[in-house]
Amino acid sequence: MSSSGKLTLVSSNKCFGGEQRVYSHESSEVGCTMKFGIFLPADALDGTKLPVLYWLSGLTCTEQNFITKSGAQRAAAKQNLIIVNPDTSPRGLNIEGEEDSYDFGTGAGFYVDATTDKWKNNYRMYSYVTKELLELINENFPTIPDRKGIFGHSMGGHGALIIALKNPGLFRSVSAFAPIAHPVKCAWGKKCFTGYLGTDENSWREYDATELVKSYNGPPLDILVDQGAADNFLKEGQLLPERLIESCAESKMPCIMRMQEGYDHSYFFIATFIDEHIQHHGKYLI
Amino acid sequence: MSSSGKLTLVSSNKCFGGEQRVYSHESSEVGCTMKFGIFLPADALDGTKLPVLYWLSGLTCTEQNFITKSGAQRAAAKQNLIIVNPDTSPRGLNIEGEEDSYDFGTGAGFYVDATTDKWKNNYRMYSYVTKELLELINENFPTIPDRKGIFGHSMGGHGALIIALKNPGLFRSVSAFAPIAHPVKCAWGKKCFTGYLGTDENSWREYDATELVKSYNGPPLDILVDQGAADNFLKEGQLLPERLIESCAESKMPCIMRMQEGYDHSYFFIATFIDEHIQHHGKYLI
Repeated sequence: MSSSGKLTLVSSNKCFGGEQRVYSHESSEVGCTMKFGIFLPADALDGTKLPVLYWLSGLTCTEQNFITKSGAQRAAAKQNLIIVNPDTSPRGLNIEGEEDSYDFGTGAGFYVDATTDKWKNNYRMYSYVTKELLELINENFPTIPDRKGIFGHSMGGHGALIIALKNPGLFRSVSAFAPIAHPVKCAWGKKCFTGYLGTDENSWREYDATELVKSYNGPPLDILVDQGAADNFLKEGQLLPERLIESCAESKMPCIMRMQEGYDHSYFFIATFIDEHIQHHGKYLI
Repeated sequence: MSSSGKLTLVSSNKCFGGEQRVYSHESSEVGCTMKFGIFLPADALDGTKLPVLYWLSGLTCTEQNFITKSGAQRAAAKQNLIIVNPDTSPRGLNIEGEEDSYDFGTGAGFYVDATTDKWKNNYRMYSYVTKELLELINENFPTIPDRKGIFGHSMGGHGALIIALKNPGLFRSVSAFAPIAHPVKCAWGKKCFTGYLGTDENSWREYDATELVKSYNGPPLDILVDQGAADNFLKEGQLLPERLIESCAESKMPCIMRMQEGYDHSYFFIATFIDEHIQHHGKYLI
């Protein structure tokens, strides 16, 4: 391991002419050591400033799942984009209950800033991603700060959508794989929102893509969503993409939702369509 | 799980229009339950007979590493090839010493048929791959039996090379990533050969690509090898590709060895060049 400013290099592997790296750093927003992955195309290694695409992962993931399973580096190298992917929650804080379930606490930060007493000091993944991480990346790597896109999977698809919708103009492009599109009305969302935000449902709507679309007032966002038709979580009503589509239609928000016959919720589904998502972002970032 | 003849389906995920499956079966060669991965392009799911490319993995791997990390399905779907990848050893036999090290026993079958008393009944990965697995695949899937290629990584690159060289005409094409090219002279090879084959070095040479090239007498084999120049195991003298190249040159065996600047021994290296390997095999299989 070597140190570089605030960042500690955890690993670096040459990949598609660039480098897939993992760094750790001490996060002030979430109060613990955090890791993130960054793919730097060859041009970035030579110091050329490039656009950045942020990936947010789903429940249970660390920064490793996307790095090893998505195959995203190939298309990122081709399109000449940096990809950054953070972890999904703070870790190792010894908050009681943090490790009790896969869908709350560790691995399940849900990209909100918690307000309940127990979680509010650390479970601040919304501010971590939108402020601390963006600044850290712009300070330490050759980025074009106003050319950013964001995408993600499942809980991370939710994160990408709400972050784009709550911060008009911050990201030029947004897409999602099987996002938790209307968390206010699904079991995963209700559990996390109750735990992190309390029982006032008005506070939940501030982190719900289907709700946020209705009040969005910013530059056009050409949302791309892929959803596997054989996804068990779709059948269980955890994802509710149909509600997002309805909301976009009512609000005249452009949104392409592609139901992909036979595909499930896994990284095999993500790997199949990641090139098309990266191309989609490339239209707005390059 | 469902059963289909001798095979039990462990998992199936739609991927690049086809399906990435894992099956288990009771192996007569190695005397335990074995798993393998198989990627079936869309045409194979419709019953069209296709060529098959066999992948052999390296030390410590199960069938999962290649499936989740190589990104091979994309190119296999494009080239319309089935890819089959077995596990790297028998498992769970309770042979004393089987679990003592990462480079011998479980996860380290080395693609030989053991002859020492302790290992000879089960550590028969050479016959498992060249006989039992090939038959199983041809019986259960829509293959073109005489259109087969073989490739692999590290210990599996060794396996692919020796299997192609020892069975002229069985495989039309062969390639390897960072193969253990001259195991008779490296620490990994010496350890496994001593354990599985005993101390007579003549028996070792029967499983050494650099040695086998010298006596090969069959259809032309256009060997492709990629080797990362920053591979720690290259520096440690475990791989010895230079000896394979010398041997090929002396024997007038076509072999393209590409030293890839900056690449290491990981699946990031494999993912970077897997498309080119699959294209190489496609030249001989399609």
